[in-house]
Amino acid sequence: MTGKRKTAAVTAPAPEREAARAPAEREARQPVEAIRAAAFAQFAERGYPVVTVRDIMKACGLTQGALYNHFKSKDELLHDIIASTQAELERVCQQAVAGAGEDPRARLAAFVRAYVMRHCRLRVEALVANREIGWLDGERVADIRRSRRAIRDVLVDILDDGLAKGLFSPPQIDGKRDLKALAMALLDQCTHISMWYGPGGRLGEEQMARLYAEMALRSVGAKA
Amino acid sequence: MTGKRKTAAVTAPAPEREAARAPAEREARQPVEAIRAAAFAQFAERGYPVVTVRDIMKACGLTQGALYNHFKSKDELLHDIIASTQAELERVCQQAVAGAGEDPRARLAAFVRAYVMRHCRLRVEALVANREIGWLDGERVADIRRSRRAIRDVLVDILDDGLAKGLFSPPQIDGKRDLKALAMALLDQCTHISMWYGPGGRLGEEQMARLYAEMALRSVGAKA
Repeated sequence: MTGKRKTAAVTAPAPEREAARAPAEREARQPVEAIRAAAFAQFAERGYPVVTVRDIMKACGLTQGALYNHFKSKDELLHDIIASTQAELERVCQQAVAGAGEDPRARLAAFVRAYVMRHCRLRVEALVANREIGWLDGERVADIRRSRRAIRDVLVDILDDGLAKGLFSPPQIDGKRDLKALAMALLDQCTHISMWYGPGGRLGEEQMARLYAEMALRSVGAKA
Repeated sequence: MTGKRKTAAVTAPAPEREAARAPAEREARQPVEAIRAAAFAQFAERGYPVVTVRDIMKACGLTQGALYNHFKSKDELLHDIIASTQAELERVCQQAVAGAGEDPRARLAAFVRAYVMRHCRLRVEALVANREIGWLDGERVADIRRSRRAIRDVLVDILDDGLAKGLFSPPQIDGKRDLKALAMALLDQCTHISMWYGPGGRLGEEQMARLYAEMALRSVGAKA
């Protein structure tokens, strides 16, 4: 057994959610949030199967028993952190689209910008959610897959609407269009920026978000 | 420790390389190829850290000692299978581009078609190469990273050439272009089709390859 993943280049998870909370709530949730943050960091750096509950609790300076006040098992903890970041991603995407008005071009651009910004910023979370999900069993993974499909369907609905309104002209292959495949291709692109993007690049996060939105608009043949 | 990855949906690796060999060579290489195929399948289904040498040898019907005639360790075996599929990917991409003539639009389309075809067909290999690479140590991973950069640079060179010839008009963000980011975005899209594409989709492999080539041409603003 190899002791850890050797090549993951990761940083600590972003403290955004934590910072956004009111002090009283933050106080009450602190152990749970500390456990979640340590789990993300440990699973990202070393891989789920080789990380023990003891490793996670040591990393956040709590006793091993403290985990079991909040999570039944390491499995449940993995599910909790992936499900919560996935639910937040779904919320962020839906909010972006809802705030973008009726034009499918504006909705597509807003969706992609929000999705890419999140994947530039929360790279540790994205790494764990995408690479370690396979360790969850069927039942635990079902709600995460449901959320992934929901996000894909938000995108498919935008593409469908743009096509119906004559504002998008997606590629046809042998006379056939496949909007689900198109949506998956766009999502793959926007998801995996989390695996290589880092500060110090030619373009900042917000510029990357606009670059990807522009690529998406071009890919679906959005009218100017 | 969880015993296996729970949600990987994988099939056996494609026997293409094997079938392409002359009978005498096939005979001589059979144990190595059997070990490689079993390793791909086991690592894909259960995850590298929980698969033992015994599991792999049992899966291909050989004795445990037979592995050590060919590989020093499980680590070396993981490196061997990832490095060989990566080298073959690099060769396939370079060959596709070399055979596509001088026009950067034809070269980009040929690159994407070849890359996507391979990722539609060799999904088990792609899954292991992308998800399990983190278990390799720094030295062993260096040649694989070099090959990945080489593939990216083939793409960057095509984009650069198309831009210089006025045939591509890649997105500019605040007056800046980032061809490396563009190349990475296209590669992410073309790589991760291996994670969800399967037979029975609306479009066949060859049609998916053309769809992705069309999306790439649109993304970089290829002139008609």
